Amino acid sequence: MSRPDISDRKRDHIELCADQDVEARIKTNLLDAVELFHDSLPELDVDAIDLSASFAGKRLKAPLLITGMTGGAPEAERINKELAMVAQELGLAFGVGSQRAMARNPDLTATYQVRDVAPDICLLGNIGAVQAAEMSTAQTEDLVGAIGADALCVHLNPGQELIQPEGDRDFRGCIDAIARLVEELSVPVIAKETGCGLSPRTLDRLAKIGVKHVDTSGAGGTTWIGVEAMRAPAAQQTLGELYWDWGVPTAASIVYAKRREMNVIGSGGLRTGYDAARAIALGADIAGMALPWLRACYNEGAPGARAFGERCLTALRTAMALTGSSNVDELRQAPKMIGPRLERWLAADPRR
Amino acid sequence: MSRPDISDRKRDHIELCADQDVEARIKTNLLDAVELFHDSLPELDVDAIDLSASFAGKRLKAPLLITGMTGGAPEAERINKELAMVAQELGLAFGVGSQRAMARNPDLTATYQVRDVAPDICLLGNIGAVQAAEMSTAQTEDLVGAIGADALCVHLNPGQELIQPEGDRDFRGCIDAIARLVEELSVPVIAKETGCGLSPRTLDRLAKIGVKHVDTSGAGGTTWIGVEAMRAPAAQQTLGELYWDWGVPTAASIVYAKRREMNVIGSGGLRTGYDAARAIALGADIAGMALPWLRACYNEGAPGARAFGERCLTALRTAMALTGSSNVDELRQAPKMIGPRLERWLAADPRR
Amino acid sequence: MSRPDISDRKRDHIELCADQDVEARIKTNLLDAVELFHDSLPELDVDAIDLSASFAGKRLKAPLLITGMTGGAPEAERINKELAMVAQELGLAFGVGSQRAMARNPDLTATYQVRDVAPDICLLGNIGAVQAAEMSTAQTEDLVGAIGADALCVHLNPGQELIQPEGDRDFRGCIDAIARLVEELSVPVIAKETGCGLSPRTLDRLAKIGVKHVDTSGAGGTTWIGVEAMRAPAAQQTLGELYWDWGVPTAASIVYAKRREMNVIGSGGLRTGYDAARAIALGADIAGMALPWLRACYNEGAPGARAFGERCLTALRTAMALTGSSNVDELRQAPKMIGPRLERWLAADPRR
Amino acid sequence: MSRPDISDRKRDHIELCADQDVEARIKTNLLDAVELFHDSLPELDVDAIDLSASFAGKRLKAPLLITGMTGGAPEAERINKELAMVAQELGLAFGVGSQRAMARNPDLTATYQVRDVAPDICLLGNIGAVQAAEMSTAQTEDLVGAIGADALCVHLNPGQELIQPEGDRDFRGCIDAIARLVEELSVPVIAKETGCGLSPRTLDRLAKIGVKHVDTSGAGGTTWIGVEAMRAPAAQQTLGELYWDWGVPTAASIVYAKRREMNVIGSGGLRTGYDAARAIALGADIAGMALPWLRACYNEGAPGARAFGERCLTALRTAMALTGSSNVDELRQAPKMIGPRLERWLAADPRR
Ligand SMILES: Cc1cc2nc3c(=O)[nH]c(=O)nc-3n(C[C@H](O)[C@H](O)[C@H](O)COP(=O)(O)O)c2cc1C
Ligand SMILES: Cc1cc2nc3c(=O)[nH]c(=O)nc-3n(C[C@H](O)[C@H](O)[C@H](O)COP(=O)(O)O)c2cc1C
Ligand SMILES: Cc1cc2nc3c(=O)[nH]c(=O)nc-3n(C[C@H](O)[C@H](O)[C@H](O)COP(=O)(O)O)c2cc1C
Ligand SMILES: Cc1cc2nc3c(=O)[nH]c(=O)nc-3n(C[C@H](O)[C@H](O)[C@H](O)COP(=O)(O)O)c2cc1C
Repeated sequence: MSRPDISDRKRDHIELCADQDVEARIKTNLLDAVELFHDSLPELDVDAIDLSASFAGKRLKAPLLITGMTGGAPEAERINKELAMVAQELGLAFGVGSQRAMARNPDLTATYQVRDVAPDICLLGNIGAVQAAEMSTAQTEDLVGAIGADALCVHLNPGQELIQPEGDRDFRGCIDAIARLVEELSVPVIAKETGCGLSPRTLDRLAKIGVKHVDTSGAGGTTWIGVEAMRAPAAQQTLGELYWDWGVPTAASIVYAKRREMNVIGSGGLRTGYDAARAIALGADIAGMALPWLRACYNEGAPGARAFGERCLTALRTAMALTGSSNVDELRQAPKMIGPRLERWLAADPRR
Repeated sequence: MSRPDISDRKRDHIELCADQDVEARIKTNLLDAVELFHDSLPELDVDAIDLSASFAGKRLKAPLLITGMTGGAPEAERINKELAMVAQELGLAFGVGSQRAMARNPDLTATYQVRDVAPDICLLGNIGAVQAAEMSTAQTEDLVGAIGADALCVHLNPGQELIQPEGDRDFRGCIDAIARLVEELSVPVIAKETGCGLSPRTLDRLAKIGVKHVDTSGAGGTTWIGVEAMRAPAAQQTLGELYWDWGVPTAASIVYAKRREMNVIGSGGLRTGYDAARAIALGADIAGMALPWLRACYNEGAPGARAFGERCLTALRTAMALTGSSNVDELRQAPKMIGPRLERWLAADPRR
Repeated sequence: MSRPDISDRKRDHIELCADQDVEARIKTNLLDAVELFHDSLPELDVDAIDLSASFAGKRLKAPLLITGMTGGAPEAERINKELAMVAQELGLAFGVGSQRAMARNPDLTATYQVRDVAPDICLLGNIGAVQAAEMSTAQTEDLVGAIGADALCVHLNPGQELIQPEGDRDFRGCIDAIARLVEELSVPVIAKETGCGLSPRTLDRLAKIGVKHVDTSGAGGTTWIGVEAMRAPAAQQTLGELYWDWGVPTAASIVYAKRREMNVIGSGGLRTGYDAARAIALGADIAGMALPWLRACYNEGAPGARAFGERCLTALRTAMALTGSSNVDELRQAPKMIGPRLERWLAADPRR
Repeated sequence: MSRPDISDRKRDHIELCADQDVEARIKTNLLDAVELFHDSLPELDVDAIDLSASFAGKRLKAPLLITGMTGGAPEAERINKELAMVAQELGLAFGVGSQRAMARNPDLTATYQVRDVAPDICLLGNIGAVQAAEMSTAQTEDLVGAIGADALCVHLNPGQELIQPEGDRDFRGCIDAIARLVEELSVPVIAKETGCGLSPRTLDRLAKIGVKHVDTSGAGGTTWIGVEAMRAPAAQQTLGELYWDWGVPTAASIVYAKRREMNVIGSGGLRTGYDAARAIALGADIAGMALPWLRACYNEGAPGARAFGERCLTALRTAMALTGSSNVDELRQAPKMIGPRLERWLAADPRR
């Protein structure tokens, strides 16, 4: 697992995600099972709707996060910078991709640094739980400090690792590492899935060790089991196809996390501001997206990303107006109808 | 927003509605989830079935309403006159479209006047809630008086406004305006949606300010978010596509309104007398339709509209016969089976 | 309504039913929602399974009925004779079609008489409820006597009548007529639908006047609304298309009738011995079919009908064997799983 | 029913199963209605996951069984030897097909003997319940002894027999025979279905006579009613088509059996290690498959079978890792979501 490996893999990932069908095939994130009740009498000025939110102690102009994707290579640097710039302009949160490459090769640090173009944003660092278990708290603190992050995402991705030919197979020590970071790190720790969702049992374990922030990254959107299947030799490809849709749908995972009083980034398969509105109406504090930002930026650069962001804000504002929500807290209480497929997942949680 | 604007828009609307696919795409109005129980022993003379009903203090020969669509332009005048004439012949209720154009330009009053051809019908005036908030009660009373209306529909259409490029965006004051009109106007006020349905919360607010009549105009039929999307520039078109099916299905909205003891016009996506029968069996006092009347009249003139109306009456009478209902009150009590998709919406109402 | 009319209509009906698609389009009879539990240890000799049943006081070799279809014309005579002959051979029950033609023109009596070829069968006469209301009990008794029937089906078909251009439209007096016949006729009266099913309310009314035998003839099979739509001029055709699938599915109707402790002929859309088995497992005493017998006989004569009957018996015996039922009573108690769509209909019965 | 008959039939069966579509058409085994909850924090070393299990007193390296298929002919001998060899290598259980042919013609014994290549495996003998009823315990004991079996499957296949032209039709005495074998045989008796599943009533009867081991062989996979339909003359073919999907889905049957505290082989339509994982998560002790092993071996010999086995082990290990199960017992307790279609079957069991 030499450094070039990681860079190549990152390039592979970005190209595959930009061009290929890397999303769930049969499963949906079940946000489509959420029907927000229309309000015919919103009694508000749409342009005065307050989209602001806060997360991890920082104020956002809108409850949206560009979830962590990349770093460690020249293309990655451009993408990070451009998306962070848009985040700064629109007042969104932004996360970098896994800082593993930079932990191994400090020369790559610059590919993650965005504070020059995005001084005010809520910025999230990122490291894998397995790597976190191999590093001291001080080393981890350095990752955070080097980019000026406001919080650190510790990502959980056993699904991806098992399909990735060179992937990790020993997941012991992750819980202890996260517990230690929660205790010792100077910034909040966000336990973050990467497309398979957080289940009731995983959330119970996270709650027990004091984790207060999670990113659901549920099933129904980009599937990393799928992405790795595309890159893998035949045997692992078959395995990846078999588990392509594995995981907890985003909508269910959001509700599970709120039942445990977490601060929740609702993510996994969100593609529009309407999806963001439904995620928040289920209880998410903010809504995260990865793939659509990548595609907008990869294909059309910063202007494309900016346009996508504006479309999201307009759509979110529209949902708020049509549910009579004058701010994000009211959207979070908006009356809704939960369809039977989601209801069934919600009932399978022992803590319902 | 000059007067020609409105006239142009009205022409656009009529042409789009006459020719294009302007109806819900995925959602249905859920009347298809209502199964009326067959009665093998109706014990009645089908030709003696009493279709009469009353609404807003007027007697109707049949519980059907041609809901408000137009006014303010020459084509509009022809359509209003022809449909009102058919309403007079068949004993149906009839509504004019928004009288906003006439409020601004009194010269257009004639395009709304139908009492010459329809002296006896239950005639409904029409004004938007946002406009009502900008007008005094006296000005509103004038609109009613000028056409000899029996009641005034105050239409609620935030969905449409948000997609319409030149649409309203400030919905404050609507509730107060409706409350004032309920109090001060000489005729009953009907709170009327325009294709997104009335939700439990909206209905609760209307009940609180004393509104006794509503027109559900639920989701599943003509979508004004869709119609405006067709007319809009690219960005708003995307937004309109996203919210194309937004709203509360008609069948649910009817039940919500009856639970609040409203006088209910069940409308939104009704296309036949069978649909009308199911809307009434759910509790609606009368059943309203817009699009099919427009199409019949636009394409085949008064004879086409008359033929459509007669088909509706026959189909309604047939449903009454086959449920053993000798009058509309009995149809309203007819035994039925509610399918699970509708049941789910009904259970989402806090006041079930 | 001259006699030739009836004969022509009968010919029309037979030809349409033999060749065209005259069955339900969207609705099923919901026997497909009944899953009989497999018995891996039936502990019986399949060839010794006792298929015998009794109905209306007569013993049958198998719980099957060829439901009433025809009479009054030469082709009708051939069909009646051939089907009755097969019934005699296989020990099934058999019903003639409406004896209205013969009531008007006694010359046609022979076209209904089958006792020469079927001396032992359980034979059912047939008259419409509207006609029964116009006839004295003595006249009705004559119809029964003239063909040596064991019971009289009084058929209820308001759905068909309303689509049939020359159909009845006054259904008053039917209940009284049936009550009178139950009281005065020498043979049992069977209240029989003709494809729209018996609903809870209809069954309650029948129970109240002492009717003990019903033929459900539920929705999901031959639709007489459909057949008449095919024969009707444009306006009624449109109406018939609209109500094509109207009615209570057979499976629901059987359960409704058993809850009221009726003797039940389960019919409407049954096409195989497997369907018959499921109807009986829901509680039907015997299972009736019309269309498949007509088609077998019309296209392949008595040998075709016999072959069809034998296939039914084998399939029924197979279902009995695989549910471990050594006789029809045991089949009626066979463990089963009711699918959700049927469950929903069953729950809509006030007397569940 | 001379000996050559059986050999021919066996050849037919193998060829049909290898080439043709012999699986359920509409029904699924409902393992697709089981959603295992993802565990983002498995806290285990994937390569140290303990797949071992035990069944019928023997230890297995993995909870998988190659269910009984063949014997009695030269091709059968090759298949038995090759699959047993793979079972030995991978540490799986293996069953031979019906030993009826060998009971009639001891010369065929060698075609069932695999101990030379598979000295350590858990080996299951196989005889039909009808044949068992015709044999003494001593004769049965000989079948077991001749191949060195660890347990004897008594297969129940009334569905197949009724479609097979030369099939058994008298199923009396099977229960007594099984009771006797449970009492007198030196090895455990496994009551085994062959594709129609074990229903609650059948399981209650088996429990009552002391049977402790069952193989569900539920509906949703290979259908023997279907295979026999393919071989049968026209009349039986029609019958076979009608009952093609008959039976209790595997997933339901597994739960029914666990509710009765049986040792359960979950089988019927399992095709991957993921299916095996879901069967075990429902409570099965081990997971059985027939058709995919046959096809792998028939088309690609021992290497193909070995490759298939390894794929199953990897997929099973993956499911265990992603549910955080470090051994098979933990997989059996893994949190899961049961879909509504399976739930319905589970609720139809009187002993739920
Ligand atoms: C190109 C790409 C790279 C990603 N890299 C990371 C990563 O390094 N760390 C991480 O936590 N998640 C990573 N993710 C996962 C996303 O943050 C997100 O959880 C997931 O894609 C689901 O969201 P989506 O459906 O909106 O894409 C990546 C996603 C994409 C598309
Ligand atoms: C061409 C057209 C114009 C309309 N204009 C008005 C209007 O001015 N005021 C109003 O309250 N509703 C208006 N509507 C809405 C209808 O009254 C009705 O609520 C809606 O179309 C849903 O019913 P439908 O599915 O039967 O068309 C219009 C509808 C159509 C088709
Ligand atoms: C050609 C034809 C003629 C029929 N005529 C009569 C009739 O005269 N009287 C009656 O009670 N039912 C009549 N029926 C209705 C049947 O008895 C039966 O109730 C109905 O067709 C539903 O059963 P199926 O789906 O098996 O056809 C007729 C049906 C057919 C197909
Ligand atoms: C070719 C073939 C032959 C079989 N022969 C037998 C047999 O002799 N005895 C038996 O108990 N089951 C027999 N079976 C049934 C299987 O053991 C198994 O129960 C059934 O095929 C369902 O599993 P599957 O869907 O994985 O194939 C046979 C199956 C196949 C495919």
